[in-house]
Amino acid sequence: MEFFPTIPVIKYEGKDSKNMLAFRHYNPDEVILGKPMREHLKFALSYWHTMCAEGSDMFGRGTMNKDFGGQTPMEIYKNKAYAAFELMNKLSIDYFCFHDRDIAPEGKTLEESNKNLDEIAELLEKLMKENNKKLLWGTANCFNHPRYMNGAGTSPEADAFAYAAAQIKKAMEVTVKLGGNGYVYWGGREGYETLLNTDMGKELDNLGFLLKLTSQYARSIGFKGDFYIEPKPKEPTKHQYDFDAATVIGFLQKYDLMDDFKLNIEANHATLAGHTFQHELAVARVNGAFGSIDANQGDLQLGWDTDQFPTNVYETTMCMLEVIKAGGFTNGGLNFDAKTRRASNTPEDIAYSYIAGMDAFALGLRLAAMVLEDGRIEEFVKQRYASYESGIGKKISDKTVTIEELEAHAKGLGEFETVPSGRQEYLENILNSIMF
Amino acid sequence: MEFFPTIPVIKYEGKDSKNMLAFRHYNPDEVILGKPMREHLKFALSYWHTMCAEGSDMFGRGTMNKDFGGQTPMEIYKNKAYAAFELMNKLSIDYFCFHDRDIAPEGKTLEESNKNLDEIAELLEKLMKENNKKLLWGTANCFNHPRYMNGAGTSPEADAFAYAAAQIKKAMEVTVKLGGNGYVYWGGREGYETLLNTDMGKELDNLGFLLKLTSQYARSIGFKGDFYIEPKPKEPTKHQYDFDAATVIGFLQKYDLMDDFKLNIEANHATLAGHTFQHELAVARVNGAFGSIDANQGDLQLGWDTDQFPTNVYETTMCMLEVIKAGGFTNGGLNFDAKTRRASNTPEDIAYSYIAGMDAFALGLRLAAMVLEDGRIEEFVKQRYASYESGIGKKISDKTVTIEELEAHAKGLGEFETVPSGRQEYLENILNSIMF
Amino acid sequence: MEFFPTIPVIKYEGKDSKNMLAFRHYNPDEVILGKPMREHLKFALSYWHTMCAEGSDMFGRGTMNKDFGGQTPMEIYKNKAYAAFELMNKLSIDYFCFHDRDIAPEGKTLEESNKNLDEIAELLEKLMKENNKKLLWGTANCFNHPRYMNGAGTSPEADAFAYAAAQIKKAMEVTVKLGGNGYVYWGGREGYETLLNTDMGKELDNLGFLLKLTSQYARSIGFKGDFYIEPKPKEPTKHQYDFDAATVIGFLQKYDLMDDFKLNIEANHATLAGHTFQHELAVARVNGAFGSIDANQGDLQLGWDTDQFPTNVYETTMCMLEVIKAGGFTNGGLNFDAKTRRASNTPEDIAYSYIAGMDAFALGLRLAAMVLEDGRIEEFVKQRYASYESGIGKKISDKTVTIEELEAHAKGLGEFETVPSGRQEYLENILNSIMF
Amino acid sequence: MEFFPTIPVIKYEGKDSKNMLAFRHYNPDEVILGKPMREHLKFALSYWHTMCAEGSDMFGRGTMNKDFGGQTPMEIYKNKAYAAFELMNKLSIDYFCFHDRDIAPEGKTLEESNKNLDEIAELLEKLMKENNKKLLWGTANCFNHPRYMNGAGTSPEADAFAYAAAQIKKAMEVTVKLGGNGYVYWGGREGYETLLNTDMGKELDNLGFLLKLTSQYARSIGFKGDFYIEPKPKEPTKHQYDFDAATVIGFLQKYDLMDDFKLNIEANHATLAGHTFQHELAVARVNGAFGSIDANQGDLQLGWDTDQFPTNVYETTMCMLEVIKAGGFTNGGLNFDAKTRRASNTPEDIAYSYIAGMDAFALGLRLAAMVLEDGRIEEFVKQRYASYESGIGKKISDKTVTIEELEAHAKGLGEFETVPSGRQEYLENILNSIMF
Repeated sequence: MEFFPTIPVIKYEGKDSKNMLAFRHYNPDEVILGKPMREHLKFALSYWHTMCAEGSDMFGRGTMNKDFGGQTPMEIYKNKAYAAFELMNKLSIDYFCFHDRDIAPEGKTLEESNKNLDEIAELLEKLMKENNKKLLWGTANCFNHPRYMNGAGTSPEADAFAYAAAQIKKAMEVTVKLGGNGYVYWGGREGYETLLNTDMGKELDNLGFLLKLTSQYARSIGFKGDFYIEPKPKEPTKHQYDFDAATVIGFLQKYDLMDDFKLNIEANHATLAGHTFQHELAVARVNGAFGSIDANQGDLQLGWDTDQFPTNVYETTMCMLEVIKAGGFTNGGLNFDAKTRRASNTPEDIAYSYIAGMDAFALGLRLAAMVLEDGRIEEFVKQRYASYESGIGKKISDKTVTIEELEAHAKGLGEFETVPSGRQEYLENILNSIMF
Repeated sequence: MEFFPTIPVIKYEGKDSKNMLAFRHYNPDEVILGKPMREHLKFALSYWHTMCAEGSDMFGRGTMNKDFGGQTPMEIYKNKAYAAFELMNKLSIDYFCFHDRDIAPEGKTLEESNKNLDEIAELLEKLMKENNKKLLWGTANCFNHPRYMNGAGTSPEADAFAYAAAQIKKAMEVTVKLGGNGYVYWGGREGYETLLNTDMGKELDNLGFLLKLTSQYARSIGFKGDFYIEPKPKEPTKHQYDFDAATVIGFLQKYDLMDDFKLNIEANHATLAGHTFQHELAVARVNGAFGSIDANQGDLQLGWDTDQFPTNVYETTMCMLEVIKAGGFTNGGLNFDAKTRRASNTPEDIAYSYIAGMDAFALGLRLAAMVLEDGRIEEFVKQRYASYESGIGKKISDKTVTIEELEAHAKGLGEFETVPSGRQEYLENILNSIMF
Repeated sequence: MEFFPTIPVIKYEGKDSKNMLAFRHYNPDEVILGKPMREHLKFALSYWHTMCAEGSDMFGRGTMNKDFGGQTPMEIYKNKAYAAFELMNKLSIDYFCFHDRDIAPEGKTLEESNKNLDEIAELLEKLMKENNKKLLWGTANCFNHPRYMNGAGTSPEADAFAYAAAQIKKAMEVTVKLGGNGYVYWGGREGYETLLNTDMGKELDNLGFLLKLTSQYARSIGFKGDFYIEPKPKEPTKHQYDFDAATVIGFLQKYDLMDDFKLNIEANHATLAGHTFQHELAVARVNGAFGSIDANQGDLQLGWDTDQFPTNVYETTMCMLEVIKAGGFTNGGLNFDAKTRRASNTPEDIAYSYIAGMDAFALGLRLAAMVLEDGRIEEFVKQRYASYESGIGKKISDKTVTIEELEAHAKGLGEFETVPSGRQEYLENILNSIMF
Repeated sequence: MEFFPTIPVIKYEGKDSKNMLAFRHYNPDEVILGKPMREHLKFALSYWHTMCAEGSDMFGRGTMNKDFGGQTPMEIYKNKAYAAFELMNKLSIDYFCFHDRDIAPEGKTLEESNKNLDEIAELLEKLMKENNKKLLWGTANCFNHPRYMNGAGTSPEADAFAYAAAQIKKAMEVTVKLGGNGYVYWGGREGYETLLNTDMGKELDNLGFLLKLTSQYARSIGFKGDFYIEPKPKEPTKHQYDFDAATVIGFLQKYDLMDDFKLNIEANHATLAGHTFQHELAVARVNGAFGSIDANQGDLQLGWDTDQFPTNVYETTMCMLEVIKAGGFTNGGLNFDAKTRRASNTPEDIAYSYIAGMDAFALGLRLAAMVLEDGRIEEFVKQRYASYESGIGKKISDKTVTIEELEAHAKGLGEFETVPSGRQEYLENILNSIMF
């Protein structure tokens, strides 16, 4: 059965194509900087937005139906699976990502939920083999259910902590079974609504323990991939502990988790935290914690996670520059944590949206490669710090200089009035000259 | 000579006074929770705003004159010193804080600047003894001069790094000479304007080294107090590395500085970073990094540091609750990093403003003590986490539980549908019932 | 049948009461400034939040059940009505407000929806008489259903426009039947998601026409009350045309609706638009458009409508000052467009929340009256503009001065260097001295 | 004398040029959509940023010197004039814009200031003729001087109002003398710092009168151009009355100024008000108030006016689309209200910056023309509203439909479940396909 009859197999037709159901930039096997585009980009389909989300918002009910003709809960979820692989095939997407509750319906008890999960996991395993698709990462939804309304790992209720641990244990098992190379922790309820009722220190200690316990368990059952924390500053909670990349890195250091954990950076979460997407990627990179990406874009004038398909080519170019600088993806990839707008309510909009996002990133990759090949921007940066390559600067870099040497040097500078221009506008214009 | 003839000595007259040149709440020697108010609050005058800032903004020149009748640069700065102590005496303020360039004019060369500094430091030392005033902390202004336009410790120019190190060395010496119990690093230019021209990793490494080098120097000349980093996310720079408390704590861990450094939390910087003042204080506290406070308030609808005198009693109450929970100030105190509004352009406005701020904090202290004596809020929080005091919760707290035990426990919970209410509105109403 | 057995009748017990199920400030029949508190405040229960909303958010399902034991849709909605009046009685609330779809279930067709509405309207009318309760205002929900996903009055589909007009017609009829003194338009979908697909001019013209047509119809069936537009800048839509009070006033002027329409100002919508609550009230007042209030509070660090129960007494005091300056409510009142937090999931939290909000406003009223009786702030403002009471200022006020006279006057001012202080901190301290 | 010896005459070299001191897109006499680029774009140099601003910010002093070798105030300002025309010639800029105090030094008295102004105006007139340059608009700086600290037209001091009127009168005279086609009002101090000391109604009435009085005076001395209000929501003032385009249009209607006034829309002011640049342009257009543009860009993550040179080609493309839809500029033009970054402190950075901005707009013009020639987006919008071209929709458009007809139509729609997709992602991808 075909679930998306109006969506054809999407082909690469080159940049001059006017066919909006074709790729203009994404040519999976084309080699850029020595590697096929599909390996640079490692696109993944997000199960929750694509197979589950129906377009509701806080002021309106759903505008799309995602039952895929199923009549019972299990039938619906099985059809979601078939439909997902149809979409991945038609869109040339090699990976997918899920929460436990996206792929199988939650039961009344943990046993029942686990049973549902096992049944669907079997089906997914089969479909993955048949279609040659891979699991980028799995995760557990510890934020939707009322039992987590005060948090999961940071819940004031030990029962909720226990339930979350058990749920994560199972999600780890399914991830390992399906060969997932990553496991994501997103702490949407790990935070507080008001400090009036919160013991922040205790909550953080508990959260650190939960991560340690569950990640060690995963290793014990053979998980070889990366654990990721996905920073987000707020929403649904007033304040979330995994505020941004720098905050999470501090947390990982404090709880001795740096060796095992990396970051899953989401563009829209970056902007909610007051940072650019590129900033968060750079923070992860310089701390050795670059892992994976949730690709989307937000609206800087809206204060919530709009999770739009990414179409701003400045953003995708800067992102791919950072990815390349970080050495490319190892276990991670580009997961489209993006949903079609509520008013983009037809199946075809799903195709239009993925094509828009994939082409924006493919073009971003092409442009990032051109920036590197052009070399002017990288060379400017290198020259800008050249004073640290010799003399007093070299001693600073090497951390061998004494404060007395520095003082003597400073006194020798006399009326030290000016330093070289940062040339921001010049560099922005070089970037435009490459991009357009 | 009297510099503020229209400002009388400000006395405590009690809450029913209608004299706006009197304290209604600040009664320095009154004992609250076993300690005089002056020791709880440790108010400090900020030299830069109070003795130097003349009311200019980006669209308008100064509205006040702070020459204090001086005719030459040195005379102006000497008069600033006399005027500062007159103000502290009239306002019952025991401490002050300064940047090197607030107290003495910058010369053309480092030697000349240092000479000016030494001359004024002598005068300050004498005035401190005569007036029984103390230095809360000193700091170096490494952000105003064009040589720092690309940063000081993070400058791409080794010369600028060297100059900053030398300047900080001298500021440390003056701080030690004047018996300062703290030294603050505020990195207003330690960040970037655009990632296009920035090597973030190198800049952070250099900054970590600068802090290590200069703090070790201070210890070598006998400094026994605390080093503080003052987080601020942005302004003047697009992005500053000391973004917020959590970010700084991650940085301190990475560069092995946690033992020596604490945080100087500023209310207005907290809000610029998207946090409440109380949040930043709590983050510092639970990480053992609570140090000192820059007391002011911002306008959450304005995106820059407005540095208003603090008058919101909700904020001062929550702040003092955190201070008390942190065990009170040791080396730190409450420095008013606040300026009279540009249109509050008379000397009397300085008095009105300090009185407003000091009384808001004194009342905040009284109310925080009442919250603690009332006990309902603290007891609610304690009870809320009671499940971690026994059974499975105790084992979680003790980190002795296994994941299998947690799973077995979760399975035993059956249809685990709900957890207790967080009671936010109830707690907010208790707070109001104590405050009003 | 009692729906809230754990909520007693809430009584006024005075400010020293420690009973959190009592009013400490709201004493309905106490006279303040010549009028009973209940007439100053005219509290209303919001049907949608209180009787319908179940605590879901974008990342979590409901935490409360609002079926009130009903088994069929109509039974549920009848029970909501009985429960609403029980609550109003227990909380001493005289008014309520609703959308058409809050009080009766939407049918498959307009006829069916209207039939449901008529049946419940009968019941409400009976309950209102029996309990002596009044309808503050009614409105139509033209934003939840998918047919309105692109707008109602601003929909690109004429069918959606027609449906909205018909739905509003019916809501008007029900409002009139129940003796409502107000009718609110809230245009949550009247805006755009992207300008790429939008004809803004056409949409605004259509919206102006819809308001004219439906308000004229209401007059034709005997509606004597006020029409209100409720400004909100965004959410759910990227941009909403009724952005803020000033924007709406411009719209009303353009489409010749100023005579019939006033504003319903919501605190949380004010802050989403970058304004204070007080600002929006003042803008409405000085334009003769002050109408009614949606009382709640937002979180200035969160970018969505949190609709919290109002507990900030600074805000309620400033609000009540504006209400008094505007001459008090005529047809309008204080509707609590507020919901208990998702984690405040018990029936008692509803009581705690309303009590917190009502007491915050009752205290705000008391304090506003004290500010006016104190007189210092009002007198300061009056004196501040005194230069317009005589001489050249009087001629400016009267608009009789010529530009040549002004120039001559300016030339006579010589070196005109300074103007009087605005005394912001002084005034803030007076306010604190009255409040605490 | 040559003031910018390192800046050559900038020539158009085409998009493949790697010369960063050349235009890649701006080819002044090339015809696009039937009109030379220079007429489409009408670029103007902003005197204040380019000839006066020296790179200071709130935390740092200037990094550039703009004395141009002058020794006395008048010599400095004369050299600014010569230097300005040299720059305009080298950059192919045909227009300039100024505040009175940019072009001549303020004297101690109004007479002295006016005398200075007259002397420089003579020089400018001569230079304009010699260099074939035009004045896009003039304005008066009524915000820098302390006498305006509480406002100019909205000052509580009648003296300040009078002084402002006299200053504007003179600025009008100079604008007329120099053949300016526009006069801008920017009310940076027309607002309030706190409502506690403000009579908003009186201030708005006074402001309305000031605009009426001075604009009528300008007409009386032969001014034929447009008056513009430039919206800005805040900064330097807490709240400015000219908040955004919609607010200003409401103000103009209220004070009967719509016939004479249009808007000068600034990109960075749009974003400070929570709008996109395109939104503000569209609001002006649909209200018949599109006038002129202050071209720059802000940083959406910074809360102040960064006034960056515009380099985001998405923004410039959307802007030029709106300009073309509005019929192009009549009296207005594109004034670069932009400054080189503080760290872009060399004369060459001025050239790099203007080139970057001019090329971004020239490319935006080319792309906007391509969007229109492509036609798909415009056609989509047209079809989207097609239901208003016939049947019930036509009657709605014509405002001839009755509410009863609409109700009957709605009842005929039965289960009216869905409306067509808004296709946002599809349209964004079309835009990308044209741009790249």
